[in-house]
Amino acid sequence: MTETQGLLIVYTGDGKGKTTAALGLVLRAWGHGMRVCVVQFIKSARGRWGEVKAARKLGITWHTMGTGFVWEPGEDDQARQRAVETWELAKRIITEDDCELVILDEFTYPLQYGWIDTGEVVEWLQQERPSRLHVVITGRDAPEGLIEAADLVTEMTSVKHPFDRGIPAQKGIEL
Amino acid sequence: MTETQGLLIVYTGDGKGKTTAALGLVLRAWGHGMRVCVVQFIKSARGRWGEVKAARKLGITWHTMGTGFVWEPGEDDQARQRAVETWELAKRIITEDDCELVILDEFTYPLQYGWIDTGEVVEWLQQERPSRLHVVITGRDAPEGLIEAADLVTEMTSVKHPFDRGIPAQKGIEL
Repeated sequence: MTETQGLLIVYTGDGKGKTTAALGLVLRAWGHGMRVCVVQFIKSARGRWGEVKAARKLGITWHTMGTGFVWEPGEDDQARQRAVETWELAKRIITEDDCELVILDEFTYPLQYGWIDTGEVVEWLQQERPSRLHVVITGRDAPEGLIEAADLVTEMTSVKHPFDRGIPAQKGIEL
Repeated sequence: MTETQGLLIVYTGDGKGKTTAALGLVLRAWGHGMRVCVVQFIKSARGRWGEVKAARKLGITWHTMGTGFVWEPGEDDQARQRAVETWELAKRIITEDDCELVILDEFTYPLQYGWIDTGEVVEWLQQERPSRLHVVITGRDAPEGLIEAADLVTEMTSVKHPFDRGIPAQKGIEL
């Protein structure tokens, strides 16, 4: 058996597939019987989304920043506060929850907005993260410091997008 | 509810995350109760892989080219023959199996090797694929004709890879 070494993985770029690839890791890890936790730093309520429905059925721990929350960079203190609280929750999950894979979905946004300090996040992950724990961070514009600290970084580039052709979001694909 | 329009999706590029993103779509669609079928044009037996274990537990239809098969471009007629047979199987699944999402994993390789004609594949998909069916094709070096025909194309670019740092493949991540 392969020796387990926790990886810090970043899926970034402007193309589709970042959160989706993280979900693929969720499925793969779940297939191995690994304990998976997901923390979403999100735009809005996702209860209707396929991945949330799937997680409920599969017994995967799933946290979101809350319902009805909409990102507006620099908009209000409440947004910043919720992001900070969600990062505190993520830290507790990483150190206490005995997960083997933790997804921090769309975590690059509060880093980009400067709501949470990238240097502190990287330092904390390097010092406090259990050595066998895989952490996956998704979102556009991953900060350079995060990319430097990561073990695996893939940039998803949009070559062609159906919205360009007037096709609406499809259930099971974007939703 | 959103009107369903079957998308042709391509995940290509040299970065990690192509098959993984396809698996994320599998999870999302399965969460919605959609019928999912996977056909793998693959390197080797994957019974031990997390996604295959997960698919078994979730009741997802999963076909592979067979066990112990190793790609060696141009190597032998047997490889070409198996790829052609697997594409025939995929066509039957697409037209007869009442799936809502079909993954053709690593299908770009037999196209690139010229074992299966890209123009014929594209024409067949445009004419014979049920209009509500989503088809996802993964693999490096997607042929131009396939990209032109697709609705959504994301290129996964490797920014950093753990193998570069001597870290072996990890269960639940690559395996």
